[in-house]
Amino acid sequence: MVVRTSSSPSTSTPAGEADPAGALARLRAASPLTQCITNAVVTNFTANALLALGAAPAMCDIPGEAGMFAGIAGGVLVNLGTPTAEQRDAAREAVSAPTPWVLDPVAVGALPIRTALAQELLAARPAIIRGNASEILALAGVGAGGRGVDATDAADDALDAARALAARTGGAVAVSGEIDLIVDAERTVRVPGGSALLTKVTGGGCALGAAMAAFAAVAEPFEAAIAASAVWAVASERAASGSRGPGSFAVAFLDELAAVHPEDLTGRAEVTR
Amino acid sequence: MVVRTSSSPSTSTPAGEADPAGALARLRAASPLTQCITNAVVTNFTANALLALGAAPAMCDIPGEAGMFAGIAGGVLVNLGTPTAEQRDAAREAVSAPTPWVLDPVAVGALPIRTALAQELLAARPAIIRGNASEILALAGVGAGGRGVDATDAADDALDAARALAARTGGAVAVSGEIDLIVDAERTVRVPGGSALLTKVTGGGCALGAAMAAFAAVAEPFEAAIAASAVWAVASERAASGSRGPGSFAVAFLDELAAVHPEDLTGRAEVTR
Amino acid sequence: MVVRTSSSPSTSTPAGEADPAGALARLRAASPLTQCITNAVVTNFTANALLALGAAPAMCDIPGEAGMFAGIAGGVLVNLGTPTAEQRDAAREAVSAPTPWVLDPVAVGALPIRTALAQELLAARPAIIRGNASEILALAGVGAGGRGVDATDAADDALDAARALAARTGGAVAVSGEIDLIVDAERTVRVPGGSALLTKVTGGGCALGAAMAAFAAVAEPFEAAIAASAVWAVASERAASGSRGPGSFAVAFLDELAAVHPEDLTGRAEVTR
Repeated sequence: MVVRTSSSPSTSTPAGEADPAGALARLRAASPLTQCITNAVVTNFTANALLALGAAPAMCDIPGEAGMFAGIAGGVLVNLGTPTAEQRDAAREAVSAPTPWVLDPVAVGALPIRTALAQELLAARPAIIRGNASEILALAGVGAGGRGVDATDAADDALDAARALAARTGGAVAVSGEIDLIVDAERTVRVPGGSALLTKVTGGGCALGAAMAAFAAVAEPFEAAIAASAVWAVASERAASGSRGPGSFAVAFLDELAAVHPEDLTGRAEVTR
Repeated sequence: MVVRTSSSPSTSTPAGEADPAGALARLRAASPLTQCITNAVVTNFTANALLALGAAPAMCDIPGEAGMFAGIAGGVLVNLGTPTAEQRDAAREAVSAPTPWVLDPVAVGALPIRTALAQELLAARPAIIRGNASEILALAGVGAGGRGVDATDAADDALDAARALAARTGGAVAVSGEIDLIVDAERTVRVPGGSALLTKVTGGGCALGAAMAAFAAVAEPFEAAIAASAVWAVASERAASGSRGPGSFAVAFLDELAAVHPEDLTGRAEVTR
Repeated sequence: MVVRTSSSPSTSTPAGEADPAGALARLRAASPLTQCITNAVVTNFTANALLALGAAPAMCDIPGEAGMFAGIAGGVLVNLGTPTAEQRDAAREAVSAPTPWVLDPVAVGALPIRTALAQELLAARPAIIRGNASEILALAGVGAGGRGVDATDAADDALDAARALAARTGGAVAVSGEIDLIVDAERTVRVPGGSALLTKVTGGGCALGAAMAAFAAVAEPFEAAIAASAVWAVASERAASGSRGPGSFAVAFLDELAAVHPEDLTGRAEVTR
């Protein structure tokens, strides 16, 4: 069964399906406080992407504050890109709060400290897991991991692994690739489009994880992951059209994130059971 | 009494009043070494803003070096946005030097570790305190703090708290808002203008604190805070006029910071006793 | 003897001389995994510069992972700009791998912890050392160091110091300045050109060190340092021509890095014995 998602309130959306347009409208209205425990490379771009999207970023990532802050945040991102000892403890605190959180298992499988931490954090059941195919395979215990931040497998290669992880957490799993794949225990969505230039800007994927955390404050995990992927696809396509290279693309991408309208997301994602 | 500030050396400026234009000319001539102990999100933008302004940034923030470096710097910023254990010790070292320093109490009041540290550092009498109204209220022991980096109070709501802090430190206090408010124990300045787009770029306010530290190397605290706020107002207005969104605004803001002339600051701030 | 470098495979290049054009072609083909242990200010710009150049950046900088990662990376950068305790241990691990690595001794001479660490790391023989004249003089034990990130000496003032360091490590030493100077134990190259705007963007020099690490994966140290400097000169000249200030320059520089062709490097560097 294939159901086109819709942004129009007058069009009936099947119960249980995703409404990314509605999610974006709610995000803009609520401006959810989004806590990011993320890597040193992408903090600035991530915060700017969240601001452009309409969320309120806060990079509170020290032990003794991270757990308390997670209690008042609307969504939390735990990205394992450069997990210092303090960040590891902050992540443990933050996932203990009842706030929905996103796990981005950067380079898990390839490197031991983050791999052990990711497995430990899984017990706290992330609402959404977002990674490339290599990372999702490694997290599920199937693959050996990539060579760091590069995906060396296609998104669909990780479909079974993603489904298994979703069954284990009860949440959603998003596999980034040329076509983004998003699953929960029962449903599958593919979000095509976007621009390859996004892979030439550091933090394009990491900021997508942060956007999923922001959406998780106003939507169920499956819908949140879809909405963020759809926004990324629209904004990156538009940004690419006027860019001369990766530098101007990154700037235009932030401009376009701020300009995406809920209705732009209509028909961007197809839910399959 | 209202006194218009002036950049013209031939116009007499009342003794004890502020001359932001003269301060900018001196900053450009001296290129003061400006040490920043600041949060991980904004280090890059802050350094670029200082370079564009004409200062020489240095993010020396580890214990064992920060105190020594503060001794040779012209001004020091201590921003509590992501205060790791090493940064907290580095801040303690740096404020022990006789160099003028700026305290930016990010999210103080809302989070315990930085709140305790801010109170401890206050004893070392910052030349300038810069924050949003919620942070200034919390630092003065009046309010409960905001929800992190967001200001939930108007600048003028913090006037009494700012005045009380200024009396305690003997320096200046700057409250960022739609209209920036700057006080010392006796004087008040409001700097209107600027652009709301600056609140959509992470680090807009944090970099303003760094600019105040740079100006503090060449001006008294009250004048330094005014000069930095006036430069921010001019550059952000000009940047906004040609921007398509927050991404292009941030780029244009750096361009405009480098292009601000001392005379552009004339009449930007009014001193009231 | 002066030998013009050449990018044409049909033109005979004297044995032992540098072929920056060939190095760039190889880098683009291999997309070498380039590990950066670098300072908090420039991580984002460095990663974006490496992506634009055609390399695959990975900022793996925690103990317990950095050494293992260095074993699979093609090149490693150790930049001492903000050396936290964890980064210092990570650097020790990384330089123990047999992978070619670049030392960027930021502010060495001026500050004690990084100065001691740089001397310790020297024993692991960096393939390339890159710094400004003040840093190279201080590392060689000749000068007193600069006031942080500023070069207060001209590149040629450090010629003897650079030669002495190269003799000690068996690698190359690059001294950044208005004209970049690159030496090994026997040869000298000067790379003129470039744009002064690059000094108004934080990380312009730090990212150059990262580019040298990427090139070191596909070229001998001397050639790698020349190739990176030549690419920087070409891209910064082109970026400057259409820029309104440091903000737009930084964006254009990333665009131009991605657009540099191997043949653009022809005649950019002259090798002298």
